Amino acid sequence: MNEDALIAALTHGLASASDPRVRLGIGDDAAVLDDGTVLSVDAVVEGTHFRRAWLTLAEIGHRGTVAALSDLAAMGASPVAVLSSVAGPDAEELTEIMSGVGEAAQRYGAVVVGGNVARAEVLSLHSTVVGRVHAPWTRSGARVGDAIYVTGTVGAAALGWRALAEGLSLEPFVTRWRRPNARFDLVPHLRPSACIDVSDGVARELGLICAASGVGARLEVAALPTEPGMSEAAARIDADPDALALSGGEDYELLFTLAASLDPTLATRVGEVIAGEGVNIVGRDGTIDHTRAGHQHY
Amino acid sequence: MNEDALIAALTHGLASASDPRVRLGIGDDAAVLDDGTVLSVDAVVEGTHFRRAWLTLAEIGHRGTVAALSDLAAMGASPVAVLSSVAGPDAEELTEIMSGVGEAAQRYGAVVVGGNVARAEVLSLHSTVVGRVHAPWTRSGARVGDAIYVTGTVGAAALGWRALAEGLSLEPFVTRWRRPNARFDLVPHLRPSACIDVSDGVARELGLICAASGVGARLEVAALPTEPGMSEAAARIDADPDALALSGGEDYELLFTLAASLDPTLATRVGEVIAGEGVNIVGRDGTIDHTRAGHQHY
Repeated sequence: MNEDALIAALTHGLASASDPRVRLGIGDDAAVLDDGTVLSVDAVVEGTHFRRAWLTLAEIGHRGTVAALSDLAAMGASPVAVLSSVAGPDAEELTEIMSGVGEAAQRYGAVVVGGNVARAEVLSLHSTVVGRVHAPWTRSGARVGDAIYVTGTVGAAALGWRALAEGLSLEPFVTRWRRPNARFDLVPHLRPSACIDVSDGVARELGLICAASGVGARLEVAALPTEPGMSEAAARIDADPDALALSGGEDYELLFTLAASLDPTLATRVGEVIAGEGVNIVGRDGTIDHTRAGHQHY
Repeated sequence: MNEDALIAALTHGLASASDPRVRLGIGDDAAVLDDGTVLSVDAVVEGTHFRRAWLTLAEIGHRGTVAALSDLAAMGASPVAVLSSVAGPDAEELTEIMSGVGEAAQRYGAVVVGGNVARAEVLSLHSTVVGRVHAPWTRSGARVGDAIYVTGTVGAAALGWRALAEGLSLEPFVTRWRRPNARFDLVPHLRPSACIDVSDGVARELGLICAASGVGARLEVAALPTEPGMSEAAARIDADPDALALSGGEDYELLFTLAASLDPTLATRVGEVIAGEGVNIVGRDGTIDHTRAGHQHY
């Protein structure tokens, strides 16, 4: 069972959609209550999401918290609070992880209001984030003819992660993976028709927007914004830079659709919304690859 | 480092108390935001909090969720939403756990609005609960002369847990541990000066009220309410029923203080708030044991 199917199974019968206290239930980057409270939970587990050798304990806390907070940015929400449940074999280590949690919260103006510690053999950090929003951005508002944009650069974190796996310290890529940034800085400047954060790669995230909006998309590989030096760095680890830009996760940039044009300093246009379903990936040679798949946690 | 010291370390420097969006930060059963949103997080980890042989997967989900929701009852709050982050080796198992989460949420009128699944070798469930409150009950309002009450019966869950560890199926004790109940039914009928839920034993929870309120307490062992048949069941596992009632955890009853007297069908009077600090435990023979300790997760 993949993560989508699992989430569907979880949602089935929970009936959150019919409760008047819930404006938006499971199925988007975050849930929204009737009063504009935005809620999301995310987790990082040692061995599954990171290896200890690649991060300090504070970086584990910071990274896990930023990944969770990014879901609030994807909803157009302001961060308010963080609750962190941390498990591991050593209490002193958990305190170091929490120092990174506190740093990440402070970075975006959120407050750590809840903490839980539990003994476990393997380290994990489960982060619930709380925000506020007036008019939430969803995945379901993309319309045929909208342009598709992505902020910053993509593929950099995945390249950094791959470099670490091969024992190389390629910068700025390794730092992009180790110390991600949630794009709250851009939220006040955007009014997208649909939005998602790039935690699992542009192709997969765009597929989720398409599925939720009932549309298709045309995505231009050549248009994907990447860091300077990406091709050379990718060559050092025998990786395809286009594949990293398309499918590499954990950049935490915002991928969104918009009917109007946009100040090009805010984001890069990478394609357009079309009729149909799924994502048509237009390669550099003009060939089209149709896909609805992407990275799955499970 | 024990859990109290760890929580203190986590709180230090997070400055949640000084943020105008936070009415009550880390340090009580739950945090309260400026608009009355109540938030708490709790976790159960296989091997630390339960063994698989003792619970079905749905019971693991139900139990972990009720334990978390109970913190909302301790604040006098109404439950609204649950976010569950579940980790384990098998996705199908996680779905079963989530069915128990959904059942627990529904039991108390809450909605599951967030879910996360992650691969991990050991099962764990991290539950964030969201409620609403007008005037939150805290741990810090106990005053000298207040009476101390506890709802329901205590020690039953701990006896059930001990019985399972010895391979005995003693009822109703095993069911009390397997299928706890959060006391939202009593919340509308109580207006305590201080309140906490009994997750870690009456003696320790009362010590937390005393520390937060700057008072001491006198607790009568003979007054502690227990299930009929407690003494006989305890004898079968060579346990001291008074020790279980005093220090056994996971009953999720409410322990509270009150200046006025109370309808005795709602709760049992077990002692009184006095000047000083810590808990004076009055044994059946009249001897007094002074303690500030109790069960620590770490």
